[in-house]
Amino acid sequence: MTALANVADVLEQIRKVRQIRQYRPDAVPEAVVWQVLEVARWTGSSRNTQPWHFIVIDDREILRQLSQLRPPIAWLAGAPLGIAIVLDGQSEISEAYDEGRVTERLLIAAKLLGLGGGVAWYGDAAQQAEAKRILGIPQERTARSIVAIGYPLSARDPRPSPVQRGRKPLAELVSWNRYGQRRQATPDGSDS
Amino acid sequence: MTALANVADVLEQIRKVRQIRQYRPDAVPEAVVWQVLEVARWTGSSRNTQPWHFIVIDDREILRQLSQLRPPIAWLAGAPLGIAIVLDGQSEISEAYDEGRVTERLLIAAKLLGLGGGVAWYGDAAQQAEAKRILGIPQERTARSIVAIGYPLSARDPRPSPVQRGRKPLAELVSWNRYGQRRQATPDGSDS
Repeated sequence: MTALANVADVLEQIRKVRQIRQYRPDAVPEAVVWQVLEVARWTGSSRNTQPWHFIVIDDREILRQLSQLRPPIAWLAGAPLGIAIVLDGQSEISEAYDEGRVTERLLIAAKLLGLGGGVAWYGDAAQQAEAKRILGIPQERTARSIVAIGYPLSARDPRPSPVQRGRKPLAELVSWNRYGQRRQATPDGSDS
Repeated sequence: MTALANVADVLEQIRKVRQIRQYRPDAVPEAVVWQVLEVARWTGSSRNTQPWHFIVIDDREILRQLSQLRPPIAWLAGAPLGIAIVLDGQSEISEAYDEGRVTERLLIAAKLLGLGGGVAWYGDAAQQAEAKRILGIPQERTARSIVAIGYPLSARDPRPSPVQRGRKPLAELVSWNRYGQRRQATPDGSDS
Protein backbone atom coordinates (compact mmCIF):
# COMPACT_ATOMS: atom_id res chain seq x y z
CA MET A 1 0.00 0.00 0.00
CA THR A 2 1.22 3.48 -0.86
CA ALA A 3 0.76 5.56 2.25
CA LEU A 4 -1.01 8.86 1.79
CA ALA A 5 1.03 11.85 2.87
CA ASN A 6 -2.00 13.71 4.14
CA VAL A 7 -3.97 11.06 5.99
CA ALA A 8 -5.14 13.47 8.70
CA ASP A 9 -6.58 15.82 6.05
CA VAL A 10 -8.35 12.95 4.34
CA LEU A 11 -9.83 11.64 7.60
CA GLU A 12 -10.99 15.15 8.38
CA GLN A 13 -12.77 15.35 5.01
CA ILE A 14 -14.45 12.01 5.63
CA ARG A 15 -15.39 12.97 9.18
CA LYS A 16 -17.07 16.08 7.78
CA VAL A 17 -19.27 14.29 5.25
CA ARG A 18 -22.74 15.67 5.90
CA GLN A 19 -26.09 15.32 4.17
CA ILE A 20 -26.37 17.98 1.48
CA ARG A 21 -29.92 18.75 0.38
CA GLN A 22 -29.46 22.03 -1.52
CA TYR A 23 -27.49 22.07 -4.75
CA ARG A 24 -26.24 24.44 -7.39
CA PRO A 25 -28.05 23.83 -10.70
CA ASP A 26 -24.86 22.64 -12.43
CA ALA A 27 -24.98 19.15 -13.93
CA VAL A 28 -22.66 16.50 -12.53
CA PRO A 29 -20.26 15.47 -15.32
CA GLU A 30 -20.77 11.88 -16.39
CA ALA A 31 -17.07 11.09 -15.84
CA VAL A 32 -17.48 12.12 -12.20
CA VAL A 33 -20.56 9.91 -11.82
CA TRP A 34 -18.52 6.93 -13.02
CA GLN A 35 -15.74 7.77 -10.54
CA VAL A 36 -18.26 7.68 -7.71
CA LEU A 37 -19.82 4.44 -8.98
CA GLU A 38 -16.43 2.77 -9.33
CA VAL A 39 -15.77 3.36 -5.62
CA ALA A 40 -19.27 2.05 -4.80
CA ARG A 41 -18.88 -1.01 -7.02
CA TRP A 42 -16.01 -2.29 -4.87
CA THR A 43 -17.93 -2.07 -1.61
CA GLY A 44 -17.86 -5.31 0.36
CA SER A 45 -21.09 -7.21 0.91
CA SER A 46 -22.36 -10.33 2.61
CA ARG A 47 -20.44 -13.22 1.02
CA ASN A 48 -19.66 -10.85 -1.87
CA THR A 49 -23.22 -11.15 -3.15
CA GLN A 50 -23.12 -7.50 -4.32
CA PRO A 51 -26.91 -7.39 -3.89
CA TRP A 52 -27.21 -3.95 -5.49
CA HIS A 53 -28.04 -2.25 -8.74
CA PHE A 54 -27.77 1.51 -9.31
CA ILE A 55 -30.12 3.67 -11.35
CA VAL A 56 -28.45 6.95 -12.20
CA ILE A 57 -31.13 9.57 -12.70
CA ASP A 58 -30.27 12.78 -14.49
CA ASP A 59 -33.78 13.31 -15.82
CA ARG A 60 -35.07 16.09 -13.57
CA GLU A 61 -38.70 15.16 -14.20
CA ILE A 62 -38.11 11.72 -12.67
CA LEU A 63 -36.41 13.28 -9.64
CA ARG A 64 -39.38 15.62 -9.31
CA GLN A 65 -41.80 12.70 -9.33
CA LEU A 66 -39.82 10.89 -6.64
CA SER A 67 -39.63 14.09 -4.58
CA GLN A 68 -43.42 14.10 -4.36
CA LEU A 69 -43.62 10.73 -2.62
CA ARG A 70 -43.64 12.51 0.74
CA PRO A 71 -43.00 16.08 1.94
CA PRO A 72 -39.69 15.47 3.80
CA ILE A 73 -38.00 14.56 0.50
CA ALA A 74 -39.35 17.50 -1.52
CA TRP A 75 -35.77 18.85 -1.65
CA LEU A 76 -34.92 15.99 -4.06
CA ALA A 77 -36.56 18.02 -6.84
CA GLY A 78 -33.65 20.46 -6.62
CA ALA A 79 -30.93 17.84 -7.14
CA PRO A 80 -29.26 17.62 -10.55
CA LEU A 81 -28.68 13.88 -10.20
CA GLY A 82 -29.61 10.91 -8.07
CA ILE A 83 -28.38 7.35 -7.69
CA ALA A 84 -31.27 5.08 -6.74
CA ILE A 85 -30.25 1.85 -5.02
CA VAL A 86 -32.05 -1.35 -5.95
CA LEU A 87 -31.48 -4.48 -3.84
CA ASP A 88 -32.06 -8.10 -4.77
CA GLY A 89 -34.78 -8.49 -2.15
CA GLN A 90 -33.40 -11.74 -0.70
CA SER A 91 -32.45 -10.80 2.85
CA GLU A 92 -33.84 -7.83 4.77
CA ILE A 93 -31.20 -7.28 7.43
CA SER A 94 -28.05 -8.06 5.49
CA GLU A 95 -29.21 -6.08 2.45
CA ALA A 96 -30.08 -3.06 4.61
CA TYR A 97 -26.59 -3.30 6.12
CA ASP A 98 -24.96 -3.61 2.68
CA GLU A 99 -27.08 -0.70 1.41
CA GLY A 100 -25.73 1.39 4.29
CA ARG A 101 -22.17 0.41 3.39
CA VAL A 102 -22.52 1.29 -0.29
CA THR A 103 -24.36 4.53 0.53
CA GLU A 104 -21.55 5.64 2.79
CA ARG A 105 -19.08 5.07 -0.04
CA LEU A 106 -21.22 7.11 -2.43
CA LEU A 107 -21.38 9.99 0.07
CA ILE A 108 -17.65 9.88 0.81
CA ALA A 109 -16.59 9.64 -2.84
CA ALA A 110 -18.92 12.52 -3.72
CA LYS A 111 -17.49 14.67 -0.94
CA LEU A 112 -13.89 13.98 -1.94
CA LEU A 113 -14.73 14.96 -5.52
CA GLY A 114 -16.10 18.32 -4.37
CA LEU A 115 -19.73 17.25 -4.53
CA GLY A 116 -22.29 16.72 -1.82
CA GLY A 117 -24.74 13.88 -1.34
CA GLY A 118 -27.99 13.47 0.50
CA VAL A 119 -30.10 10.38 1.13
CA ALA A 120 -33.85 10.40 0.50
CA TRP A 121 -35.97 7.47 1.71
CA TYR A 122 -39.12 6.82 -0.29
CA GLY A 123 -41.18 5.99 2.79
CA ASP A 124 -43.56 3.16 3.64
CA ALA A 125 -44.38 0.09 1.56
CA ALA A 126 -46.92 1.92 -0.62
CA GLN A 127 -44.49 4.77 -1.30
CA GLN A 128 -41.72 2.29 -2.12
CA ALA A 129 -44.09 0.53 -4.54
CA GLU A 130 -44.79 3.88 -6.20
CA ALA A 131 -41.05 4.61 -6.48
CA LYS A 132 -40.54 1.23 -8.13
CA ARG A 133 -43.31 2.01 -10.59
CA ILE A 134 -41.73 5.38 -11.46
CA LEU A 135 -38.33 3.76 -12.00
CA GLY A 136 -39.51 0.56 -13.68
CA ILE A 137 -38.13 -1.62 -10.91
CA PRO A 138 -39.72 -5.08 -10.54
CA GLN A 139 -41.90 -5.07 -7.41
CA GLU A 140 -40.09 -8.11 -5.93
CA ARG A 141 -36.88 -6.10 -5.63
CA THR A 142 -36.22 -3.86 -2.65
CA ALA A 143 -35.89 -0.12 -3.31
CA ARG A 144 -36.17 2.36 -0.49
CA SER A 145 -33.57 5.06 -0.99
CA ILE A 146 -31.86 7.34 -3.46
CA VAL A 147 -28.62 9.23 -2.96
CA ALA A 148 -28.90 12.71 -4.48
CA ILE A 149 -25.62 14.16 -5.70
CA GLY A 150 -24.68 17.66 -6.80
CA TYR A 151 -22.47 20.64 -6.16
CA PRO A 152 -23.42 21.93 -2.71
CA LEU A 153 -25.18 25.24 -2.40
CA SER A 154 -25.71 25.05 1.34
CA ALA A 155 -25.47 22.46 4.09
CA ARG A 156 -28.61 23.86 5.71
CA ASP A 157 -31.39 21.32 6.23
CA PRO A 158 -34.35 22.77 4.27
CA ARG A 159 -36.91 20.37 5.73
CA PRO A 160 -39.85 21.60 7.81
CA SER A 161 -38.52 19.74 10.88
CA PRO A 162 -34.74 19.86 10.57
CA VAL A 163 -32.83 17.42 12.69
CA GLN A 164 -30.60 18.50 15.55
CA ARG A 165 -26.96 18.53 14.40
CA GLY A 166 -23.85 17.51 16.31
CA ARG A 167 -22.89 14.15 17.70
CA LYS A 168 -22.66 12.42 21.07
CA PRO A 169 -19.21 12.67 22.70
CA LEU A 170 -16.87 9.68 22.52
CA ALA A 171 -17.09 9.30 26.31
CA GLU A 172 -20.74 8.39 25.89
CA LEU A 173 -20.27 6.18 22.84
CA VAL A 174 -17.33 4.00 23.76
CA SER A 175 -16.77 1.19 26.26
CA TRP A 176 -13.65 -0.92 26.66
CA ASN A 177 -13.79 -4.72 26.76
CA ARG A 178 -17.19 -4.78 28.43
CA TYR A 179 -20.36 -2.79 27.84
CA GLY A 180 -20.39 0.24 30.14
CA GLN A 181 -16.72 -0.05 31.15
CA ARG A 182 -15.03 3.30 30.48
CA ARG A 183 -11.34 4.07 30.07
CA GLN A 184 -10.00 7.20 31.75
CA ALA A 185 -8.26 8.93 28.89
CA THR A 186 -11.16 9.38 26.49
CA PRO A 187 -10.53 12.31 24.14
CA ASP A 188 -13.24 14.95 23.87
CA GLY A 189 -13.56 14.74 20.11
CA SER A 190 -14.38 17.66 17.91
CA ASP A 191 -17.73 19.43 18.08
CA SER A 192 -18.06 20.19 14.37
CA MET B 1 -13.77 22.82 1.76
CA THR B 2 -10.05 22.45 1.20
CA ALA B 3 -9.67 20.34 -1.91
CA LEU B 4 -7.31 17.40 -1.61
CA ALA B 5 -4.48 17.46 -4.10
CA ASN B 6 -4.48 13.71 -4.51
CA VAL B 7 -8.16 12.84 -4.73
CA ALA B 8 -7.58 10.06 -7.27
CA ASP B 9 -5.08 8.37 -4.93
CA VAL B 10 -7.49 8.63 -2.02
CA LEU B 11 -10.39 7.21 -4.01
CA GLU B 12 -8.12 4.37 -5.11
CA GLN B 13 -7.28 3.60 -1.47
CA ILE B 14 -10.95 3.58 -0.57
CA ARG B 15 -11.85 1.47 -3.58
CA LYS B 16 -9.27 -1.06 -2.44
CA VAL B 17 -10.59 -1.48 1.10
CA ARG B 18 -10.92 -5.24 1.53
CA GLN B 19 -11.73 -7.49 4.45
CA ILE B 20 -8.53 -8.31 6.31
CA ARG B 21 -8.72 -11.43 8.48
CA GLN B 22 -5.03 -12.12 9.20
CA TYR B 23 -3.03 -9.68 11.28
CA ARG B 24 0.44 -9.09 12.59
CA PRO B 25 0.57 -9.53 16.38
CA ASP B 26 1.36 -5.83 16.94
CA ALA B 27 -1.04 -3.94 19.16
CA VAL B 28 -3.01 -1.06 17.67
CA PRO B 29 -1.94 2.13 19.47
CA GLU B 30 -4.75 3.65 21.50
CA ALA B 31 -4.31 7.01 19.75
CA VAL B 32 -5.01 5.30 16.43
CA VAL B 33 -8.12 3.64 17.84
CA TRP B 34 -9.45 7.07 18.83
CA GLN B 35 -8.74 8.42 15.32
CA VAL B 36 -10.80 5.63 13.83
CA LEU B 37 -13.61 6.14 16.36
CA GLU B 38 -13.68 9.89 15.74
CA VAL B 39 -14.39 9.26 12.05
CA ALA B 40 -17.07 6.71 13.00
CA ARG B 41 -18.66 9.01 15.56
CA TRP B 42 -19.56 11.53 12.85
CA THR B 43 -21.35 9.00 10.65
CA GLY B 44 -24.83 10.10 9.66
CA SER B 45 -27.81 8.10 10.89
CA SER B 46 -31.55 8.06 10.65
CA ARG B 47 -32.72 11.44 12.01
CA ASN B 48 -29.32 11.70 13.70
CA THR B 49 -30.33 9.13 16.30
CA GLN B 50 -26.74 7.79 16.39
CA PRO B 51 -28.16 4.42 17.46
CA TRP B 52 -24.73 2.93 18.17
CA HIS B 53 -22.32 2.23 20.96
CA PHE B 54 -18.83 0.83 20.45
CA ILE B 55 -17.03 -1.67 22.65
CA VAL B 56 -13.32 -1.58 21.95
CA ILE B 57 -11.85 -4.96 22.80
CA ASP B 58 -8.13 -5.31 23.27
CA ASP B 59 -8.40 -8.21 25.71
CA ARG B 60 -7.39 -11.15 23.53
CA GLU B 61 -9.23 -13.63 25.73
CA ILE B 62 -12.53 -11.90 24.98
CA LEU B 63 -11.78 -11.93 21.25
CA ARG B 64 -10.98 -15.64 21.55
CA GLN B 65 -14.33 -16.31 23.23
CA LEU B 66 -16.19 -14.42 20.49
CA SER B 67 -14.21 -16.27 17.81
CA GLN B 68 -15.64 -19.54 19.09
CA LEU B 69 -19.24 -18.56 18.45
CA ARG B 70 -19.04 -20.24 15.03
CA PRO B 71 -16.26 -21.67 12.84
CA PRO B 72 -16.32 -19.02 10.06
CA ILE B 73 -15.21 -16.35 12.55
CA ALA B 74 -12.41 -18.39 14.15
CA TRP B 75 -9.94 -15.93 12.55
CA LEU B 76 -11.12 -13.29 15.05
CA ALA B 77 -8.90 -14.97 17.67
CA GLY B 78 -5.87 -13.67 15.73
CA ALA B 79 -6.92 -10.02 15.79
CA PRO B 80 -5.19 -7.66 18.21
CA LEU B 81 -8.29 -5.51 18.60
CA GLY B 82 -11.98 -5.44 17.79
CA ILE B 83 -14.70 -2.81 17.83
CA ALA B 84 -18.03 -4.44 18.66
CA ILE B 85 -21.08 -2.48 17.52
CA VAL B 86 -24.08 -2.27 19.83
CA LEU B 87 -27.34 -0.84 18.50
CA ASP B 88 -30.26 0.60 20.43
CA GLY B 89 -32.59 -2.17 19.26
CA GLN B 90 -35.42 0.18 18.24
CA SER B 91 -35.66 -0.33 14.48
CA GLU B 92 -34.39 -3.36 12.58
CA ILE B 93 -34.00 -2.04 9.04
CA SER B 94 -32.79 1.48 9.74
CA GLU B 95 -30.36 0.30 12.41
CA ALA B 96 -28.93 -2.38 10.08
CA TYR B 97 -28.48 0.34 7.45
CA ASP B 98 -26.83 2.70 9.94
CA GLU B 99 -24.62 -0.16 11.19
CA GLY B 100 -23.49 -0.69 7.60
CA ARG B 101 -22.69 3.01 7.26
CA VAL B 102 -20.64 3.19 10.44
CA THR B 103 -18.87 -0.08 9.64
CA GLU B 104 -17.80 1.23 6.25
CA ARG B 105 -16.30 4.28 7.95
CA LEU B 106 -14.41 2.09 10.42
CA LEU B 107 -12.98 0.01 7.55
CA ILE B 108 -12.04 3.04 5.47
CA ALA B 109 -10.44 4.93 8.36
CA ALA B 110 -8.49 1.82 9.36
CA LYS B 111 -7.22 1.36 5.81
CA LEU B 112 -6.15 4.99 5.45
CA LEU B 113 -4.22 4.68 8.72
CA GLY B 114 -2.31 1.66 7.41
CA LEU B 115 -4.44 -0.89 9.24
CA GLY B 116 -6.86 -3.47 7.97
CA GLY B 117 -10.33 -4.33 9.17
CA GLY B 118 -12.56 -7.35 8.92
CA VAL B 119 -16.17 -7.84 9.93
CA ALA B 120 -17.25 -10.89 11.93
CA TRP B 121 -20.97 -11.61 12.40
CA TYR B 122 -21.85 -13.49 15.56
CA GLY B 123 -24.50 -15.61 13.83
CA ASP B 124 -28.08 -16.49 14.69
CA ALA B 125 -30.18 -15.25 17.61
CA ALA B 126 -28.68 -17.74 20.09
CA GLN B 127 -25.13 -16.83 19.05
CA GLN B 128 -25.94 -13.13 19.31
CA ALA B 129 -27.32 -13.73 22.80
CA GLU B 130 -24.09 -15.48 23.75
CA ALA B 131 -22.01 -12.59 22.35
CA LYS B 132 -24.07 -10.16 24.45
CA ARG B 133 -23.43 -12.29 27.51
CA ILE B 134 -19.67 -12.31 26.85
CA LEU B 135 -19.63 -8.52 26.40
CA GLY B 136 -22.12 -7.63 29.14
CA ILE B 137 -24.56 -6.10 26.66
CA PRO B 138 -28.19 -5.91 27.81
CA GLN B 139 -30.17 -8.53 25.86
CA GLU B 140 -32.70 -5.95 24.59
CA ARG B 141 -29.96 -4.24 22.59
CA THR B 142 -28.97 -5.44 19.13
CA ALA B 143 -25.43 -6.75 18.68
CA ARG B 144 -24.52 -8.84 15.68
CA SER B 145 -21.11 -7.78 14.45
CA ILE B 146 -17.61 -6.79 15.42
CA VAL B 147 -15.03 -5.05 13.26
CA ALA B 148 -11.58 -6.55 13.87
CA ILE B 149 -8.70 -4.14 13.32
CA GLY B 150 -4.98 -4.72 13.09
CA TYR B 151 -1.90 -4.39 10.94
CA PRO B 152 -2.49 -6.64 7.92
CA LEU B 153 -0.43 -9.77 7.54
CA SER B 154 -2.22 -11.03 4.47
CA ALA B 155 -5.40 -10.29 2.56
CA ARG B 156 -5.96 -14.01 2.03
CA ASP B 157 -9.30 -15.31 3.26
CA PRO B 158 -8.39 -18.03 5.81
CA ARG B 159 -11.91 -19.43 6.08
CA PRO B 160 -12.71 -23.00 5.08
CA SER B 161 -15.00 -21.75 2.27
CA PRO B 162 -13.44 -18.53 1.05
CA VAL B 163 -15.64 -16.28 -1.01
CA GLN B 164 -15.02 -15.60 -4.69
CA ARG B 165 -13.27 -12.24 -5.08
CA GLY B 166 -13.78 -9.59 -7.74
CA ARG B 167 -16.85 -7.54 -8.52
CA LYS B 168 -19.54 -7.35 -11.18
CA PRO B 169 -18.74 -4.92 -14.04
CA LEU B 170 -20.37 -1.50 -14.06
CA ALA B 171 -22.25 -2.43 -17.24
CA GLU B 172 -24.16 -5.01 -15.23
CA LEU B 173 -24.69 -2.82 -12.17
CA VAL B 174 -25.83 0.48 -13.59
CA SER B 175 -29.00 1.66 -15.36
CA TRP B 176 -29.84 5.22 -16.42
CA ASN B 177 -33.15 6.85 -15.52
CA ARG B 178 -35.08 3.57 -15.65
CA TYR B 179 -34.29 0.10 -14.40
CA GLY B 180 -32.61 -1.90 -17.17
CA GLN B 181 -31.93 1.10 -19.42
CA ARG B 182 -28.24 1.14 -20.28
CA ARG B 183 -26.08 4.00 -21.53
CA GLN B 184 -23.62 3.21 -24.31
CA ALA B 185 -20.41 4.59 -22.90
CA THR B 186 -20.12 2.53 -19.73
CA PRO B 187 -16.51 2.26 -18.59
CA ASP B 188 -15.14 -1.20 -17.95
CA GLY B 189 -13.96 -0.49 -14.41
CA SER B 190 -10.92 -2.02 -12.85
CA ASP B 191 -10.65 -5.72 -12.14
CA SER B 192 -8.71 -5.47 -8.90
